[in-house]
Amino acid sequence: MATARLSDLQDRMSRLGLAARAAASRMATVPRSAKDRALRAGAQALRTRRAEILEANARDMEAARGKGLSGAMLDRLALDPGRIEAMAAGLETIAGLEDPVGTELARWRRPNGLDIARVRVPLGVVGIIYESRPNVTADAGALCLKAGNAAILRGGSESFHSSRAILECLREGILEAGLPEAALQSLPTTDRAAVGIMLGMHEHIDVIVPRGGRSLIERVYAESRIPVLAHLDGLCHLYLHEAADPAMAVEIALNAKMRRTGICGAAETLLCDRAVADRILPPVLEALIAAGCEIRGDAEVCRLEPRAVPATEEDWRTEYLDAILSVKLVGGLEEAIAHVNAYGSHHTDSIVTGDREAAERFLAEVDSAIVMHNASTQFADGGEFGMGAEIGISTGRLHARGPVGVEQLTTFKYVVRGSGQTRPK
Amino acid sequence: MATARLSDLQDRMSRLGLAARAAASRMATVPRSAKDRALRAGAQALRTRRAEILEANARDMEAARGKGLSGAMLDRLALDPGRIEAMAAGLETIAGLEDPVGTELARWRRPNGLDIARVRVPLGVVGIIYESRPNVTADAGALCLKAGNAAILRGGSESFHSSRAILECLREGILEAGLPEAALQSLPTTDRAAVGIMLGMHEHIDVIVPRGGRSLIERVYAESRIPVLAHLDGLCHLYLHEAADPAMAVEIALNAKMRRTGICGAAETLLCDRAVADRILPPVLEALIAAGCEIRGDAEVCRLEPRAVPATEEDWRTEYLDAILSVKLVGGLEEAIAHVNAYGSHHTDSIVTGDREAAERFLAEVDSAIVMHNASTQFADGGEFGMGAEIGISTGRLHARGPVGVEQLTTFKYVVRGSGQTRPK
Repeated sequence: MATARLSDLQDRMSRLGLAARAAASRMATVPRSAKDRALRAGAQALRTRRAEILEANARDMEAARGKGLSGAMLDRLALDPGRIEAMAAGLETIAGLEDPVGTELARWRRPNGLDIARVRVPLGVVGIIYESRPNVTADAGALCLKAGNAAILRGGSESFHSSRAILECLREGILEAGLPEAALQSLPTTDRAAVGIMLGMHEHIDVIVPRGGRSLIERVYAESRIPVLAHLDGLCHLYLHEAADPAMAVEIALNAKMRRTGICGAAETLLCDRAVADRILPPVLEALIAAGCEIRGDAEVCRLEPRAVPATEEDWRTEYLDAILSVKLVGGLEEAIAHVNAYGSHHTDSIVTGDREAAERFLAEVDSAIVMHNASTQFADGGEFGMGAEIGISTGRLHARGPVGVEQLTTFKYVVRGSGQTRPK
Repeated sequence: MATARLSDLQDRMSRLGLAARAAASRMATVPRSAKDRALRAGAQALRTRRAEILEANARDMEAARGKGLSGAMLDRLALDPGRIEAMAAGLETIAGLEDPVGTELARWRRPNGLDIARVRVPLGVVGIIYESRPNVTADAGALCLKAGNAAILRGGSESFHSSRAILECLREGILEAGLPEAALQSLPTTDRAAVGIMLGMHEHIDVIVPRGGRSLIERVYAESRIPVLAHLDGLCHLYLHEAADPAMAVEIALNAKMRRTGICGAAETLLCDRAVADRILPPVLEALIAAGCEIRGDAEVCRLEPRAVPATEEDWRTEYLDAILSVKLVGGLEEAIAHVNAYGSHHTDSIVTGDREAAERFLAEVDSAIVMHNASTQFADGGEFGMGAEIGISTGRLHARGPVGVEQLTTFKYVVRGSGQTRPK
């Protein structure tokens, strides 16, 4: 890129950042009613301007076909009346959520009379970088707005026109509610250099939330000067303990692996206690194979199930996001926990057992954002957790761990009320 | 540095990181009693081995004098029986704090019967980088331990022997309580290259807490691939609103600026409403000048107080950490808030007023970690907040904002208990 163009882009990005910061400052103190009104008016605009959005999407789809994008990519990009209605309904759901801003998280009085409160406030400016799904524009933008933040959105170049049309609807809602227009902005260009500039704007952006494939997340982690909320992998484990109910093991394994294979909460590795493998494992593998799942087993699993192919060391570290499952026998709870902590991605891991003590030890010692007992790993989702909506799932340990919903898009400050107190020497 | 030596150092750092991770994993589930026992035994060891610590400190002091370190630096480095007893008592205070680990922050049941709890767990591995104060070894190490973390400490080269002697005492406590020795480690060398390697060890270290001067914090922010909890500046404001009580204004201004001038909660800029400046400001400035404070005022302030020197634009952005105060008149609440948000460092800012409505607006609209009404900014301190002890104050917006105490050195995970639930299509 020519130096003059890069410097021009930097100027534009800097102005965008300053506008976002100013908008965030105003957003921090607007009442819930205005934010909800903006979201509901945005939903209405999505419905009213449906034809316009579909037209913009048709342009994106045509270009994508021209570039030879895969069927899965095209499906993620495609909008139809049902998907637009789902976006509108999503905005209304978010409008209905409790406003987290202003909540007193704690309040106490010191012996000297100082009254100290920890109060929830918005995070500030959220940068969202995503790929082909245009609906992220609506979902992520709305969550940021509800939490009182300003957002800077950078959608994929494939969804450029669709995202812009959706953003126009949201901004129509924002203006109708009298909120600052710059509360939701998108990058002026799909130039990749703009992402690099964005990731360095730590004075203007408080947190980056990337949504997309592994290469995007890796780039963001590597380049960002701004804290990142994300997960690189969802290498989720299901562990069948010796006290597992055999029928429950089949149901949960089938659901954890096969309900949807492409989501981050899908199980990728199945562990089973050696002592009960003969009895518990065959019907589990039978059900998985019947549902179209490929089994990659260790030597013992391959002996139990001839249709299994031998797993390599790499398999224990692989998030397939596909109808493939690695399966391994373990000597018991301790070995299972050690395997999960060593090979997992600290996302979501579940134990199936009727032994409460074993379950509690697994829940305590597995070091993941979400640990489960007798439940499918596919419940790893903000909606399923009752958070209303989520912008993603974080495997980082700081600030937000697990689903990132409206609460996780806030921070807090300390409010100290006194009556003239001074600090003694 | 020769390539072979660098590679050897990298190997040693990597082993240190792996040992810390393994220790953190064990620390995460040890009972409170073992952690408290380690802290109390560590306190006892500090007392028993006092002569050894003083001897180590004498070596550091001699080297520091040889290098021509300033009086203030020498004072920070010096230990005496009183300071050693204060460290020991500090460990006992931390032992007496509530154990944050295992606390249920929230728990709810979903319509499908899933029971979801958000449970506090340790952060993992904390990296602490500090300068000349050897007592940070005890304070920061103990807080990390109490929160169930492993810590990697990197003290300044000036305090090398003192820190090592203190660390030996803490490790004596750790071993006596049967905790993993690698829960507290220090870098094998004071080589600056080791800090660079440490800041890139994002697989082994979860958060970096730097303690020290501006150049250290700047370096850490610039180089770290790991999230940082810190503040670069404590550019704190005190605002005398038109409804301020004149006597309270004098008391708070004097305390906020002059109680200690070198701490991050010291006020650096005083704002005063123009409408009442004639009446309120002169006794405030008189008291400050009488206490030895230099006043740098805007043109109006210089007219009111001839001993004031004219402030430059730079003064509004300067953290003096000294007996100097910049003073400016403002047109009212709105201008005061705008000045604080534009020039401040989002650390601690206070308003003096008898007008509750004005106070609440200041508390809501000033975007700082700590906002105060009718109280001295010097209360910005974990101990004064009732947190028992702190490892520092963060002006970052994510995870911990304000004092970083034992709770802020934890994170959480979701524990989901089911009875065989699978997620519907």
